[in-house]
Amino acid sequence: MSAPDGGDRGDLLARVFLSRVLEPGDPAGGRWVRELGAATVARRLREGGPRLAGASDRRWAGLCARAARADPEQDLAQARAAGVRFVRPGDAEWPAQLDDLSDARPTGLWVRGAPSLRLWALRSVAVVGARACSGYGAHMAAMLAADLAERGWVVVSGGAYGVDGAAHRGALGSGGATVAVLACGVDRPYPRGHAELIHRIAQQGLVIGELPPGEHPTPSRFVVRNRVIAALTRGTVVVEAAYRSGSLVTARAARRLGRHTIGVPGPVTSSLSAGVHELLRGGAELVTDAAEVVELVGDMGELAPDRRGPVLPRDLLEADTRQVLAALPARGVVGAAEVARGARTTTDDAVARLYELRALGYAERQGEGWKLTRQAMNSIRPGREER
Amino acid sequence: MSAPDGGDRGDLLARVFLSRVLEPGDPAGGRWVRELGAATVARRLREGGPRLAGASDRRWAGLCARAARADPEQDLAQARAAGVRFVRPGDAEWPAQLDDLSDARPTGLWVRGAPSLRLWALRSVAVVGARACSGYGAHMAAMLAADLAERGWVVVSGGAYGVDGAAHRGALGSGGATVAVLACGVDRPYPRGHAELIHRIAQQGLVIGELPPGEHPTPSRFVVRNRVIAALTRGTVVVEAAYRSGSLVTARAARRLGRHTIGVPGPVTSSLSAGVHELLRGGAELVTDAAEVVELVGDMGELAPDRRGPVLPRDLLEADTRQVLAALPARGVVGAAEVARGARTTTDDAVARLYELRALGYAERQGEGWKLTRQAMNSIRPGREER
Repeated sequence: MSAPDGGDRGDLLARVFLSRVLEPGDPAGGRWVRELGAATVARRLREGGPRLAGASDRRWAGLCARAARADPEQDLAQARAAGVRFVRPGDAEWPAQLDDLSDARPTGLWVRGAPSLRLWALRSVAVVGARACSGYGAHMAAMLAADLAERGWVVVSGGAYGVDGAAHRGALGSGGATVAVLACGVDRPYPRGHAELIHRIAQQGLVIGELPPGEHPTPSRFVVRNRVIAALTRGTVVVEAAYRSGSLVTARAARRLGRHTIGVPGPVTSSLSAGVHELLRGGAELVTDAAEVVELVGDMGELAPDRRGPVLPRDLLEADTRQVLAALPARGVVGAAEVARGARTTTDDAVARLYELRALGYAERQGEGWKLTRQAMNSIRPGREER
Repeated sequence: MSAPDGGDRGDLLARVFLSRVLEPGDPAGGRWVRELGAATVARRLREGGPRLAGASDRRWAGLCARAARADPEQDLAQARAAGVRFVRPGDAEWPAQLDDLSDARPTGLWVRGAPSLRLWALRSVAVVGARACSGYGAHMAAMLAADLAERGWVVVSGGAYGVDGAAHRGALGSGGATVAVLACGVDRPYPRGHAELIHRIAQQGLVIGELPPGEHPTPSRFVVRNRVIAALTRGTVVVEAAYRSGSLVTARAARRLGRHTIGVPGPVTSSLSAGVHELLRGGAELVTDAAEVVELVGDMGELAPDRRGPVLPRDLLEADTRQVLAALPARGVVGAAEVARGARTTTDDAVARLYELRALGYAERQGEGWKLTRQAMNSIRPGREER
């Protein structure tokens, strides 16, 4: 990552600054950053000019007013105190698939939670749908998310009431991995009624968002947030959605980005399935269970797991992750709690790292437990290969 | 239609005979008829030899034993007495689309009911599904059938309990056209509990089948019957079907024949929708209402009804059908009962002929009533075109 001025620290501060000043997904802002670099754009906004192409005088003035109030050093310090980090393009933790958003790519992401966003996002699926879902929708979301988690997939959703909440809870309930993508500051759980759930997600998974600490959600921020869910994951499953539902925005974004667009059918007599059926009639893929989702989003290796090896050499793993890997027995399946004891860490940390190891091809989930992949066994004990 | 020996009467009697002796859909029998003609095949079977290629000695002996008991003259007389006619390939009433079945084409069809099978089948859709359907399935079948009938489409089904019965009743209930394709003699309603329904269908629509009077249904006859439903119609809509349901046989036959294969989704949690979802995952088209069915099965004219003209000159219509056409007013919509009064016939007869006129492009349904198409107005009063 090159920063035209100010060096790497300068780029970091500039991106934190821009995450406060620009609205998420603003394509003009994205173009400025691409053409001039974050530091230059930040300086022009801070200095009040000259105005950049693509912004009206009025809009430019609005941005400059926001720029005058921005304090990236303080934002970073405040975030750090709240256990929140800032991940930007080029960082080791940056999920490269977000680059598919081109000029609508986030300036950076605010991240709460221990796991590596990049590794978790590698094998992730979005499960989204109606806020005012039916019992059927809640059941399907929870069941799909739990089964996806048991198959080693990370469940991404928007933290909202209804389908989103059921999906997060389903994943957490099966000791699985889940990521909430918020349309507000990640220190500010929204909706309020999900404060406890979002706190749990931050403990056991990841809570992420484009907006800096303290920012509120707005209707347009919800819509724009959906492109991040779509871009981060290999596919978006819509469980229930009325016509013109926000989750259809996510599904259409997924299609534009070349991700799988997937729908769970329901009764034709339910208006909450009408949007899903419209999606399915438009070419989305119909699924009835998690196995069918995995069949779509899984790579070739999913069908022949024995042929997938670790994608990162063991020496390049973080030391703590290597500890967790070492705690997996040569044979058989163990629970995350036992792995945690072996690695002298917490269960939440062990789960976080186990899903990272899953993404890297070292470990796989089997029911409630974890085991080494065959390739991992070979790579860990090279002697076996020579027999 | 050429008859190698015995002339046209010979071909008729031979086909009636074969409908008694050969099992429906027997491809060897179909090949014999194609290669030698019905009369020659009938004679060989009646005379006990020489054995035809493709039948074992044992099977040939079985066919000859049935042949010895067959009496086509009596079958025809008995059928005539019961108001049943025999329609065979080459007849004016023969639905040419059944020829797509190649050697599995029926030898002929036994038909109860006044309307022209050929004309009704031109604009027909199959609505089929589980016998032990849910309330949801029965509701959807009845609603789709009623709406399809109101749009001038003929609803074809198998007369069974569950979805089939709901579809027939839905069509009848909206004063519409319906055809039951039975897996037994058309004089022998099956299932028994549908005796009254099948009688009503014969009064207001058509009851047809390949088997001669008195024949019983068997499991294999149900399966083989489904190909006739698929071939007769422009598309097959499966409303509810468990895995391995018979209606999936109809749907797959429809696909093989190049007809539309259509499914109504339901809750993933219902085993009665599992077969439909499997079908939809395999490429069938998802619909949620009759308008979407018509969009698929309708020809180009369906989207631009004003540009479709009558396909048969008025002079070639049957005299009674011309009477019904004449009873339609130059402007506006009238009910079938009023048309019947104007044409001095019964309402059932008027409805039968109105659906024929619909198939021919002269009339169209609008809600509960009927009116002339614009082209029919022009063709009936040519003076209008000259203005």
